[in-house]
Amino acid sequence: MIEKKLEVAMLYDIYHPLLTDTQKNIMDLYYNHDLSLTEIAEEVGVSRQAVYDHLKRTEKLLCDYEEKLKIREGESRRSRLIKEATSNLESLKENRETIIKIKEILEQL
Amino acid sequence: MIEKKLEVAMLYDIYHPLLTDTQKNIMDLYYNHDLSLTEIAEEVGVSRQAVYDHLKRTEKLLCDYEEKLKIREGESRRSRLIKEATSNLESLKENRETIIKIKEILEQL
Repeated sequence: MIEKKLEVAMLYDIYHPLLTDTQKNIMDLYYNHDLSLTEIAEEVGVSRQAVYDHLKRTEKLLCDYEEKLKIREGESRRSRLIKEATSNLESLKENRETIIKIKEILEQL
Repeated sequence: MIEKKLEVAMLYDIYHPLLTDTQKNIMDLYYNHDLSLTEIAEEVGVSRQAVYDHLKRTEKLLCDYEEKLKIREGESRRSRLIKEATSNLESLKENRETIIKIKEILEQL
């Protein structure tokens, strides 16, 4: 459950610019401010069920965006490859200055 | 003009999964099959003006997606950084096997 919430939060972080203000507001209260459904319902002035439905629909939307654009998948893949390249770099002893420079570049990727 | 067409074609390549079938069809005929507006109008069975409006709207949509998600900007940035890292790697002489391995990883980024 926590893992699923973390995954949705990461998708929200990437795709929130594609959401409406209302979608962003409810997602933000739930995922970033950690409010309960009841608390959000009171804050926004709708029923708890409406908040629940809204969250479910927005989560599905975020998953659909990821299925189509795969930004998160690309980020995970690159993160693995950068770790692998960095670990290979660590094994080189010659010319530390250049190696440090390459590692700095990799950190920006 | 060619540069602008190339830029839109690259955005289309990234964001086409977010377009409707009609949007994809007209963009595909124009950008990938290089048909003229008149030829597309005949193919799709609408006016030349309708094709033009459709292309303009879809181009704007693609630019909006890029402004929000910046996938293309990120790709260009990474491409520059990978070239820089690879060029630094070239200067290292020691342990060619490891360096070749790192370069292979960078190519996958």
